Amino acid sequence: MALIVQKYGGTSVADAERIRAVAERVVATAREGNQVAVVVSAMGGETDRLVDLAHELGGDEPDPREYDALLSTGEQKTTALLAMAIRRLGATARSFNGAQMGMRTDAAHTRARIESLDAGRIRAALDQGHIAVLAGFQGTDEDGNITTLGRGGSDTSAVAAAAALEADVCEIYTDVDGVFTTDPNVSSRARKLERVAYDEMLELASLGARVLQTRSVKFAKRYGVRLHVRSSFHGGEGTWVVPEEEVMERLVVSGVTYNTNEAKIRVRGVKDQPGVAAALFTPLSASAIVVDMIIQNVGQDGSTDLTFTVPRDDYARALGLAQDAASVIGAQAVEGDEAIAKVSIVGLGMKDHAGVATRMFQVLAEEGINIQLISTSEIKVSVVIEEKYTELAVRALHAAFVEAGATAPVEES
Amino acid sequence: MALIVQKYGGTSVADAERIRAVAERVVATAREGNQVAVVVSAMGGETDRLVDLAHELGGDEPDPREYDALLSTGEQKTTALLAMAIRRLGATARSFNGAQMGMRTDAAHTRARIESLDAGRIRAALDQGHIAVLAGFQGTDEDGNITTLGRGGSDTSAVAAAAALEADVCEIYTDVDGVFTTDPNVSSRARKLERVAYDEMLELASLGARVLQTRSVKFAKRYGVRLHVRSSFHGGEGTWVVPEEEVMERLVVSGVTYNTNEAKIRVRGVKDQPGVAAALFTPLSASAIVVDMIIQNVGQDGSTDLTFTVPRDDYARALGLAQDAASVIGAQAVEGDEAIAKVSIVGLGMKDHAGVATRMFQVLAEEGINIQLISTSEIKVSVVIEEKYTELAVRALHAAFVEAGATAPVEES
Repeated sequence: MALIVQKYGGTSVADAERIRAVAERVVATAREGNQVAVVVSAMGGETDRLVDLAHELGGDEPDPREYDALLSTGEQKTTALLAMAIRRLGATARSFNGAQMGMRTDAAHTRARIESLDAGRIRAALDQGHIAVLAGFQGTDEDGNITTLGRGGSDTSAVAAAAALEADVCEIYTDVDGVFTTDPNVSSRARKLERVAYDEMLELASLGARVLQTRSVKFAKRYGVRLHVRSSFHGGEGTWVVPEEEVMERLVVSGVTYNTNEAKIRVRGVKDQPGVAAALFTPLSASAIVVDMIIQNVGQDGSTDLTFTVPRDDYARALGLAQDAASVIGAQAVEGDEAIAKVSIVGLGMKDHAGVATRMFQVLAEEGINIQLISTSEIKVSVVIEEKYTELAVRALHAAFVEAGATAPVEES
Repeated sequence: MALIVQKYGGTSVADAERIRAVAERVVATAREGNQVAVVVSAMGGETDRLVDLAHELGGDEPDPREYDALLSTGEQKTTALLAMAIRRLGATARSFNGAQMGMRTDAAHTRARIESLDAGRIRAALDQGHIAVLAGFQGTDEDGNITTLGRGGSDTSAVAAAAALEADVCEIYTDVDGVFTTDPNVSSRARKLERVAYDEMLELASLGARVLQTRSVKFAKRYGVRLHVRSSFHGGEGTWVVPEEEVMERLVVSGVTYNTNEAKIRVRGVKDQPGVAAALFTPLSASAIVVDMIIQNVGQDGSTDLTFTVPRDDYARALGLAQDAASVIGAQAVEGDEAIAKVSIVGLGMKDHAGVATRMFQVLAEEGINIQLISTSEIKVSVVIEEKYTELAVRALHAAFVEAGATAPVEES
């Protein structure tokens, strides 16, 4: 008998009919002889409706404690409805809200972090033969106030439950079949990965793959929770996200991702002296603008260019702040460009293969694509290019690295 | 500084605009120097929507534990929204769900009874200068399962909170101005009562006045909570429901009520011997049919007629059961009549005045209204009459007893 945690997002429980379908899958899993704990999100659209009401009554910045109390009702509603639907199929179930499931967080409303999960009540319910239906996204702080986990919260709830219950697997149900080597909308040759390591998944997620939030993957890595990302529409195998040692086939490149939600700002002719970078980036971080890549080139005249990327939504604000800073530090000019894309290749096998970055630059050069910025880590290479070349770059890199496959590793220089 | 508990029903918090209006009233009460705890129901219509979903997924009889978990989200939503709206007006507020407010009930889902209310957290919030916004209708049992209190639950929550906090008053806000001497839709001479005693209010409520549930009045009586039933539309005084000794003006009749939701069943020619009544009423109570009045007349031939009333919704079922029982106990016939009304007069002063019932029968006789059944208690007289005479009877009794007033007490026989 295995202990399985399943997580269904808002789309999978959007209406009564879909909740019934989820109930059927959950009950089928239990009838195969497994103990099952299910984590659910709010019904699709419910959270948006609650957010609208919050702004209508609470203004632009509703009180965070009450905002969390309000939003938490969305998942509670789904748990009760799913538990009813499961019971109607002849199985038994018990719903748990954040407080009932022992999900203790810090007190940072709207973006709380999990501190502990005392799974005693969930385990008791499972041992009594119940299916446990758990509210994702929520917990309580040490004073019993309701908190929510913020973006990606329900995935993280599911991983935390799987960790606390020492589950055999945490299944993340989604509207795609798993994790793909690239976006199937861009390349028809994208294929589903059977297994990826936590670190690969982290890079893929943070570089553009939207199937999992990085936060839940970090949590899974820390507690060794095996994730199975799979379709809620059929029973086929999806992608397993597992410890590195379980990934047999160490692909040089397991995925090609892209992100067109960033913009680039270049501050030219900065004096190359201490404190310049601080003067530029302090106002940005004070405004909660997250800077991604930063590149500095020292020119021959002793002055330097500083180039960085920011989320495109923050571009206008960031440009203004950079212009203010530029006049203070005596820079020559500030230039901006929104029409950029970050394209990345990710793979565990890069650790063992030199020259992967060089090969990437060659592939792009062969397509006539100019590289504006480069950033690397042990298992990824990212480049910034003109946005219009995004799909061309992704397809070329996918063909060169993924379709060529691990059987043709790059071994040069 | 007074401590005031206010309760607003679903109509008063039906949409964002009304919640804002409630927030304004609550904040005004606090700014007058009072500590305020507010009990709210679900937004009007919300509970119905949740009930519909429950039946869609849980069938005709959704699991009671999950039904309660589902319904409880309605009030939680209102508490968070009202707390936000209060904060936006510059005051501070904290919402509490059933678990957070320490409302402990028994485990009878959908109709739980309050066992205790540990108001420590509410009091701490009040002492810190917050307005406490409490979810009505809900609590948790000793295992932490969410329960709901059933019909009239939010009024009862408010009274329990007022009792636990030793509040100076529990204000019940409603869409009428208070408790009236009779239904203003029937008699334009109906007037608002300034004060009524708990026992009077209990009789008025159970005999047809819909402004308060009997359950909350019983609770208020037991703990000596002073209720103030008042309009949510204006600031005028409503009706105070208080201990008997605080009612200065002991009216002989303080209210005339009617109820046209009952039906009458008569079982004729029953042998006058032990066990007959049991044989008749046992099947009814086994079917959860609540019998109201029961009258037995022994005829000269040693046989007896048994007449009783039941809710009109249960009439068809009750008639069938009575017919089954009649053939077992050898009764001659079973007759039924749905077109009846129960008209009652209620007043503390009846204790001190004889002949009130007689005067009531005279008044009805003068109008040519025949009395079918009579039932009395220390402070009320109820009669069953033909339904078509309802308004005529109410107006005549109101004129004779209420409009004549306490200054002309009935003193005869």
